[in-house]
Amino acid sequence: MSKQTVWTIIGGGNGGQSMAGHLAIMGYRVRLYDIFQATVDAINNQGGIHVDGVVQGFGRLEFATTDINKAIKGADVLVVVAPAINHKEIAESCMPSLSDGQIIIIHPGATCGAFEFKKVLDDGGSQIDCLIAETNSLIYACRSTKPGYASILGIKQDLKIATLPASGNTRVLEVVREAFPQIVGAKNVLETSLENANAVMHPAPTILNTSMIESDHEWLYYWEGVTPTIGDFVVDLDRERLAIGKAYGVQLESIMSFYKKAYQVEASNLSETVRKNPAYEKIKGQKDLRTRYLLEDVPMGLIPMIELGKMRGVDVSRMETIAKLAEFLLNEDFHKDGRTLKNLGISDMKPDEFDHFIETGTRETNKQKEFV
Amino acid sequence: MSKQTVWTIIGGGNGGQSMAGHLAIMGYRVRLYDIFQATVDAINNQGGIHVDGVVQGFGRLEFATTDINKAIKGADVLVVVAPAINHKEIAESCMPSLSDGQIIIIHPGATCGAFEFKKVLDDGGSQIDCLIAETNSLIYACRSTKPGYASILGIKQDLKIATLPASGNTRVLEVVREAFPQIVGAKNVLETSLENANAVMHPAPTILNTSMIESDHEWLYYWEGVTPTIGDFVVDLDRERLAIGKAYGVQLESIMSFYKKAYQVEASNLSETVRKNPAYEKIKGQKDLRTRYLLEDVPMGLIPMIELGKMRGVDVSRMETIAKLAEFLLNEDFHKDGRTLKNLGISDMKPDEFDHFIETGTRETNKQKEFV
Repeated sequence: MSKQTVWTIIGGGNGGQSMAGHLAIMGYRVRLYDIFQATVDAINNQGGIHVDGVVQGFGRLEFATTDINKAIKGADVLVVVAPAINHKEIAESCMPSLSDGQIIIIHPGATCGAFEFKKVLDDGGSQIDCLIAETNSLIYACRSTKPGYASILGIKQDLKIATLPASGNTRVLEVVREAFPQIVGAKNVLETSLENANAVMHPAPTILNTSMIESDHEWLYYWEGVTPTIGDFVVDLDRERLAIGKAYGVQLESIMSFYKKAYQVEASNLSETVRKNPAYEKIKGQKDLRTRYLLEDVPMGLIPMIELGKMRGVDVSRMETIAKLAEFLLNEDFHKDGRTLKNLGISDMKPDEFDHFIETGTRETNKQKEFV
Repeated sequence: MSKQTVWTIIGGGNGGQSMAGHLAIMGYRVRLYDIFQATVDAINNQGGIHVDGVVQGFGRLEFATTDINKAIKGADVLVVVAPAINHKEIAESCMPSLSDGQIIIIHPGATCGAFEFKKVLDDGGSQIDCLIAETNSLIYACRSTKPGYASILGIKQDLKIATLPASGNTRVLEVVREAFPQIVGAKNVLETSLENANAVMHPAPTILNTSMIESDHEWLYYWEGVTPTIGDFVVDLDRERLAIGKAYGVQLESIMSFYKKAYQVEASNLSETVRKNPAYEKIKGQKDLRTRYLLEDVPMGLIPMIELGKMRGVDVSRMETIAKLAEFLLNEDFHKDGRTLKNLGISDMKPDEFDHFIETGTRETNKQKEFV
């Protein structure tokens, strides 16, 4: 593929507009889909997106649209840039318009985003031959002050991507790295799913800041919210995450190592480490418990991690404690619509079936196995 | 018995000195035991304890001592007024000096204080025929600024007492109510144990104030620490406590009803209720996670409640979540020395055996049962 690759960005928030503008500036053919007519109109009226920051210029789009079918038809790559709690609905909207050979990238997938997208297609009886990839994080530090304008403050290095099935990794990586050489390949979607740092960095500190959130005090999420005890507990949670990775044969990076590598900060504990990170200086703490830090990062982060861990006998009791407490405090049943293995359709797979599914995207039936 | 009753107060802290002084002012013969020589000397030098507040006067003691045997010999009633984490050690110290007919009152017993005391005696092979009672709270709101001086700010109404075995309730109540008509009889030690309000009011708010505790902010435990979400969660925890009571046939008072009755305050939720309580106006929040609110109220409060609940199939998942999180945050194994049913020696009792034990203090052996 060349710059003739047609990219469709699904989601016109900060990340989606930054990516659409950036790709268009690079010279790609880009469409943008959003549910808000006002966003779409603002972009179409000016013909594209103004980008500033570490990328500067005007990215001229083919079009923005609220018509998902129009957005998808003829596109080579679809990039979903939306909250994880919307992924399922987006998959359902996309399904009727998909065609063979398309690449879908969930950016980021939170935990098990690719599994969930594939489950929607399988349940819908889709016969389309597509590749579903996910990244472990958003590639940009960015913001959008109004429709049609995006500020890219930074582009992350070593963002991970993996494909379901993993046999498609090479093809997806080739297409994606042409535009984003910062992206590297992960072994499989378990690696990207377990590298979702939000699952350890958001729910536990949020819960342990409950009174601060509901107080009159303004506070800084990392600099003040990650106290010594909270930081140590997050590191313990992170050890559970690393142990899940080990059980599935994927090598993950510890949160402490991540900070050292990504921000060149290092200290004896996590609380001091985040306080040394100038990128966190102005990140305010929330003033309401009901934010994505719980509503998304528990059902789409901690819960699938917990269930993956339990499937291989890993001790995930700290993660479980936090997920349960989040459900109790918010009076929510995050297991109902969250990414449980049952909801993902993978709860009854034996270890070798699961490995096979990740590698090939197909499920061996018992009958097939009998004849092997 | 008359004012000739000899009371030994075990523990020379706020509560112990207040009680010793108060009883002596009433005209009883009183001894006080403490481990600190300085406390004992200060009291002996002036011959007793100065009391002010709602009780005023000088309570002349028989003696204060660091010699547990001297304190106990010849006493009719021993009152243990000490942190629950010291109860076991106190029982071990008392055992060699106990004699038939003595009444031991654990004041308060936290949860399962009487079971624990009895377990020490049974394990030690004690053949002494004594009654072990417990109250559900301390009868005083009090403080002691220095040894020999106590301020009694208030005396609680309707404090509950129960005896192990429950067959001793009448006798204990008769002795105790002569001095303290504010005390009422509970059905059995499960009722007093489950009426330990600290188990619901301390650990959960403490944990959900972790960042506040480790911040630079001074805060008020009830007025600021019990935010709307935290208050609602405590009420949910309290429902688990009430359900445990129901499973054992004891009628408990809800925390909301308690505030209405004890402080004449009432609001639509717990957060508002405690903020309306002027008695809580000046109660500061702790600035260290390692206080009795977790170190005592989890192993000696929540954990025995959880295990009693599970023994009868009650959902105690909120209590469990808080107890586990306390262990994780403090890196403590509260089950090791805490009041688990195993540590209390009652884990293997069937429901009818347990009921029999509570009523009679004796355990039917399998052999005895075969011949029944």
